[in-house]
Amino acid sequence: MKNPWKTLSSKIVYQNPWMRVHEDAVITPTGKEGIYGFFESKDSVIVGALNEKNEIYLIYAYSYPAKCWRWQLPGGGGENEDIIEASKRELAEETGIAANSWEKLQSTRVCDGFMTERTTTLLARELTLGERAQAEDNGLIAKGDFFSLDSVRDMVEAGDIDDGQSVTALYLIEKWLAKHRNM
Amino acid sequence: MKNPWKTLSSKIVYQNPWMRVHEDAVITPTGKEGIYGFFESKDSVIVGALNEKNEIYLIYAYSYPAKCWRWQLPGGGGENEDIIEASKRELAEETGIAANSWEKLQSTRVCDGFMTERTTTLLARELTLGERAQAEDNGLIAKGDFFSLDSVRDMVEAGDIDDGQSVTALYLIEKWLAKHRNM
Repeated sequence: MKNPWKTLSSKIVYQNPWMRVHEDAVITPTGKEGIYGFFESKDSVIVGALNEKNEIYLIYAYSYPAKCWRWQLPGGGGENEDIIEASKRELAEETGIAANSWEKLQSTRVCDGFMTERTTTLLARELTLGERAQAEDNGLIAKGDFFSLDSVRDMVEAGDIDDGQSVTALYLIEKWLAKHRNM
Repeated sequence: MKNPWKTLSSKIVYQNPWMRVHEDAVITPTGKEGIYGFFESKDSVIVGALNEKNEIYLIYAYSYPAKCWRWQLPGGGGENEDIIEASKRELAEETGIAANSWEKLQSTRVCDGFMTERTTTLLARELTLGERAQAEDNGLIAKGDFFSLDSVRDMVEAGDIDDGQSVTALYLIEKWLAKHRNM
């Protein structure tokens, strides 16, 4: 099916090393002239690291835009590298964990109306725990621990986890586990 | 726990009626001078409309940033109105459905690193089907239908649903249903 918008022109109205903001002049699907602003950033990864009891590792991290500390899954922006390599690096930096087994789950769009960024969810298993290195020293991550998926569900319900990208990853991870439990 | 960043100054580097882009001059958690860019937009709602068989209504809509048509849950930006009223309006506009029973589930943050926007997931039941009105006429939504939650899981697995906000809402809705089935 065809694109119901017509793009007349496109310009970058702001950029910094992490993002570019685009403003397109458009004809809307109803035939009116207007603008559409959206936001380009690097694709990212988010990692569900599961131990042998299928507990998942969460980090307690600070969100600058939200001005709050929250529990969430580790992950971050890709640097145009291989997705598995990016995930290994993010997991090591933020948790000190190395994993022998990696599964690439789905790629999802972060914000339908405003962003081009996609996040790929990865499942990491057969873990070796190490020292939480740079991230803790940086003050960006205060602590981390394993939680059962039932505890995580309760933390989401209570608002202790409110990062949508983490909740999306939890859906994908739980569906993967349910499917592969029966194989 | 305290904010590990120090904000030295803050300016709006771009705005349009739907968003404001902020660039803050900061001292990072490691003590370096830098900038942090982020993106402010109105909080939003996303609606899981369930029929008496617990099938959920999906719309087939176009994403301008992603340049693709995808299945997703109805919803949209709030207009500073009551969350239930905003949800009733979005559901009516995008699907023609009215609902007698509304449950407000969790509010989640759309993009931890870049956005202030929060989305509230709502569950709508006791549905009355009507005509899909403006949205279809607008060319923004091509079609809509009810799908079982198992079908929806398969659509997510296949990438036919790849909107992270929809997947987040599906996690919240399934957990609510699992909890209330046993009460």
